[in-house]
Amino acid sequence: PITSSSLKPAYPLPPPSTRLTTILPTDLKTPDHLIPRDPRLIRLTGSHPFNVEPPLTALFEHGFLTPQNLHYVRNHGPIPSSVATPPATINKEEDDSLLNWEFTVEGLVEHPLKISVRELMDASKWDNVTYPVTLVCAGNRRKEQNVLRKSKGFSWGAGGLSTALWTGVGLSEILARAKPLTKKGGGARYVCFEGADQLPNGTYGTSVKLAWAMDPNKGIMVAHKMNGENLHPDHGRPVRVVVPGQIGGRSVKWLKRIVVTKGPSENWYHVFDNRVLPTTVGPEESGEKTEEMERVWRDERYAIYDLNVNSVICEPGHGEVVSLRGDEGAGTYRLRGYAYAGGGRRVTRLEVTLDQGKSWRLAGIEYPEDRYREAQDGEELFGGRLDVSWRESCFCWCFWDLEIPLSELRKAKDVCIRAMDESLALQPKEMYWSVLGMMNNPWFRVVIHHEGDTLRFEHPTQPMLTSDGWMDRVKKEGGNLANGFWGEKVPGAEENV
Amino acid sequence: PITSSSLKPAYPLPPPSTRLTTILPTDLKTPDHLIPRDPRLIRLTGSHPFNVEPPLTALFEHGFLTPQNLHYVRNHGPIPSSVATPPATINKEEDDSLLNWEFTVEGLVEHPLKISVRELMDASKWDNVTYPVTLVCAGNRRKEQNVLRKSKGFSWGAGGLSTALWTGVGLSEILARAKPLTKKGGGARYVCFEGADQLPNGTYGTSVKLAWAMDPNKGIMVAHKMNGENLHPDHGRPVRVVVPGQIGGRSVKWLKRIVVTKGPSENWYHVFDNRVLPTTVGPEESGEKTEEMERVWRDERYAIYDLNVNSVICEPGHGEVVSLRGDEGAGTYRLRGYAYAGGGRRVTRLEVTLDQGKSWRLAGIEYPEDRYREAQDGEELFGGRLDVSWRESCFCWCFWDLEIPLSELRKAKDVCIRAMDESLALQPKEMYWSVLGMMNNPWFRVVIHHEGDTLRFEHPTQPMLTSDGWMDRVKKEGGNLANGFWGEKVPGAEENV
Repeated sequence: PITSSSLKPAYPLPPPSTRLTTILPTDLKTPDHLIPRDPRLIRLTGSHPFNVEPPLTALFEHGFLTPQNLHYVRNHGPIPSSVATPPATINKEEDDSLLNWEFTVEGLVEHPLKISVRELMDASKWDNVTYPVTLVCAGNRRKEQNVLRKSKGFSWGAGGLSTALWTGVGLSEILARAKPLTKKGGGARYVCFEGADQLPNGTYGTSVKLAWAMDPNKGIMVAHKMNGENLHPDHGRPVRVVVPGQIGGRSVKWLKRIVVTKGPSENWYHVFDNRVLPTTVGPEESGEKTEEMERVWRDERYAIYDLNVNSVICEPGHGEVVSLRGDEGAGTYRLRGYAYAGGGRRVTRLEVTLDQGKSWRLAGIEYPEDRYREAQDGEELFGGRLDVSWRESCFCWCFWDLEIPLSELRKAKDVCIRAMDESLALQPKEMYWSVLGMMNNPWFRVVIHHEGDTLRFEHPTQPMLTSDGWMDRVKKEGGNLANGFWGEKVPGAEENV
Repeated sequence: PITSSSLKPAYPLPPPSTRLTTILPTDLKTPDHLIPRDPRLIRLTGSHPFNVEPPLTALFEHGFLTPQNLHYVRNHGPIPSSVATPPATINKEEDDSLLNWEFTVEGLVEHPLKISVRELMDASKWDNVTYPVTLVCAGNRRKEQNVLRKSKGFSWGAGGLSTALWTGVGLSEILARAKPLTKKGGGARYVCFEGADQLPNGTYGTSVKLAWAMDPNKGIMVAHKMNGENLHPDHGRPVRVVVPGQIGGRSVKWLKRIVVTKGPSENWYHVFDNRVLPTTVGPEESGEKTEEMERVWRDERYAIYDLNVNSVICEPGHGEVVSLRGDEGAGTYRLRGYAYAGGGRRVTRLEVTLDQGKSWRLAGIEYPEDRYREAQDGEELFGGRLDVSWRESCFCWCFWDLEIPLSELRKAKDVCIRAMDESLALQPKEMYWSVLGMMNNPWFRVVIHHEGDTLRFEHPTQPMLTSDGWMDRVKKEGGNLANGFWGEKVPGAEENV
């Protein structure tokens, strides 16, 4: 008889990674000269450090799960030398050389712990779990902010996010054994994470609230596998934190220390990065060495944790051309893209406008994450129990689509979209500019150019330094991108000319 | 020696309630003819049922905690006859007559429970806790939606919220004893609440997710005291649910049943109320008896739980006049108001613009709720342990203020504000209209009229049927409130006239 395990599961399985064995020429001259990488990844900060996003089309074509070699990467410096040793490929069978890697759980805890990767993977010692998480860089879509007004961050396009199946142990389990001193003056309120990287301002480190870390609903994990494979050095080999629903900057790689503390992390990267300061603070003021400015930077209210709701049009892609000739022009075009929200909240709707917000249409949304909820209780994947069915949370991106007759698209100047999440957060029409250029989430707008018998679609920007896209074009033409109409003539004005 | 208990606590204590003994003439002709009420409350649905908000000025003057007699009320029908018996005043010593009131915990649980109010209050049986919670009607600020386009809800002003110190037992504690059947096919995923009121469509009932209900961080409580007093019949005498951070409609009054279920509540009021349908659904379509429309109503994605971020200008009030004569004109005006967010999230900033969004100023924010976090571990208030210090969540409104030179106010056409919460949700410039008119949270805008040597301030609307406010005025003048400029002439247009 056919057993359930011999059936193809209802949930998505990761595409096989490309086996990376070649060191790219551009890496040979850098401290990362031992790290094999995928040449398709778009480098956002020159050849080093390695900060990359996949091409939006390649990312989207892979669907729900991103192969490890195409997953976006945010490195603040060189890969730690201890994990940059060969074999640093991503194939499990070749890389069990770091099983003795240890991390500590210390600080305000009753039972400090030292845990090796070998122990962590041992099912008799720790309850291993597997679930999908979309990681998103806080800088996703920052290029748009930089065109409006230069921020202090580099120019991510709309591909600063990726999804993988992560396997590891819940941080709530680990902390439960360490027993944080929360009661009677113990004062434990935060959990700091520290990696192994050596940077100009020390090791990369950050913190989250202890209440979140101890909450199984939040799903924070110490992970040793990604899509069933050992972690590639760019993704935290051999062990990292994964914080679902929060900005990627909290998911510390190359994990060495978990420290329970009274206050938030004092790490330079926690205080002076991953914040959305008030829009009133400009680049010059933010660099001032005043007490007032120091107070602003250290105000935990401006630290960012939960992702905000966001969405992007992937099809049509930038530069895509659609023919309107003959029968073709009588057809339809299926708009498609992605959306996500933070804090475990679901994207509840995606709306599309062809008239700049005067009227809206409702797109369909597919949530591949929900298919893992149908897994049998106790079902295992990659050595971890699939731990999704009981969760009410959404940790992953979703996909939307809307079929539009070309006869309507040809009448429109542009297509804009906005998503709403289950806490009723709505993508705003206008950009909230801030000095670090983070969490950019205004309506995603694609301009439609009518050229003879074709429509040509133009995205707002392209990642990195290329000046392609309507934002740079409008700016060069003298348009004011902040006028509330994307730098175009104000509608009312035209009527009176 | 002075003991800590003889010192005035750092946290706010409730103002004494007004002792209500008189039945108002307007209630005498209704089923609520035994219920004493405060005559200042503004009735939004005629004399019956009792749906009221306090005058915004009175609410704001009371500060953080609202006396029970001024707290907003949303009743769907008559007060249940069993609790409308005298003495139905709000003074504890006079009203212990309903201590035998029982509610059940049933459905998908291992140990069904029946709990009386007497048992619930017994510290040897249940861990009683006290903390402040701001309840907000999902319809707060709906009047603004109704002026733009009539929704299916009645016209709340900006006073549809109030804050009280609630005492009771955590729902997570109660459920832990009942043991929901979550594992191995038990399928428990929702918790339904049912009250004792008899309505045309049955008893009022609704549900929340079981994962929330069992999460102590979420702070859902079964409460028997409000500001240290027994519950007034309008507030759920003798026992009710209080769900912090969510719309008031989930906080079921006159609690009779807690039912653990597989699916969300099937109660009419759960399915056909407290939802934000897509903006594309108009009043006619929403009433159609089609399969498609039924599917839309039952789509849990459109049910609303967490409050969205919102803020209001309370000072200047509507109609307030400020003199600019002589020395007075050289002074400043201190703008003040309230803000709140949902899901336990903190309001992280409040920004003010005098030029319709071209530039912003940052207001100061006071969080009186944080002062309860300073209470000693185990400190009791009203028979409940103050249970705030360990919580990272914000369950209450906060207050903002900003001093502005009159010399600048006299140059402005209006003042607009927007708040952002810790998940980076930002109040949008434009309204998200939906057919039930809920969760309205665009920038709050006060128009400034320059009249001789004075400035007169005009709020968008006033509650109920009065047509006061700039929205009704602009509409009557033929302005299109949806033009992105509050119905005023589009700025670019003027230049070209």
